[in-house]
Amino acid sequence: MYLAQIYVTHKPSILDPQGEAVKNALHRLNYTSIESISQGKFFEVTINADSKDEAVKTIESICKDLLVNQNMETYSYEIKEG
Amino acid sequence: MYLAQIYVTHKPSILDPQGEAVKNALHRLNYTSIESISQGKFFEVTINADSKDEAVKTIESICKDLLVNQNMETYSYEIKEG
Repeated sequence: MYLAQIYVTHKPSILDPQGEAVKNALHRLNYTSIESISQGKFFEVTINADSKDEAVKTIESICKDLLVNQNMETYSYEIKEG
Repeated sequence: MYLAQIYVTHKPSILDPQGEAVKNALHRLNYTSIESISQGKFFEVTINADSKDEAVKTIESICKDLLVNQNMETYSYEIKEG
């Protein structure tokens, strides 16, 4: 059994209206020390796999097939045995 | 300048219909090795602060004030100088 943590964020060139809205809200609450904020998605996945290589392959392919819109988003992940 | 990465996830006792929907979609795509999946939010924040302590205080308080619904969600974060 492997546990993967997947982080999906906007590509830098893509507008992030959600992050912008959160930043504006924080500035209105007087958190003026916040320079920038971007919001992404975070997945925790448990996978039945015989090896770490197999788990990595599964993670890569579920990211490309479902979790990530590769036109607008990038992803990174960490996998540990658990 | 500090860079914080904040992870917001559902509390274990709270139903996660979004994660459930993603899991079902993956099973329909024949990724049957996926045991469980939960979806959360991920924030990347840059903060102007004089010390790491000050940055930690700011992060704690923006989480409680805006980013996290403490009835249903928990959060963790990492802060590094950058």
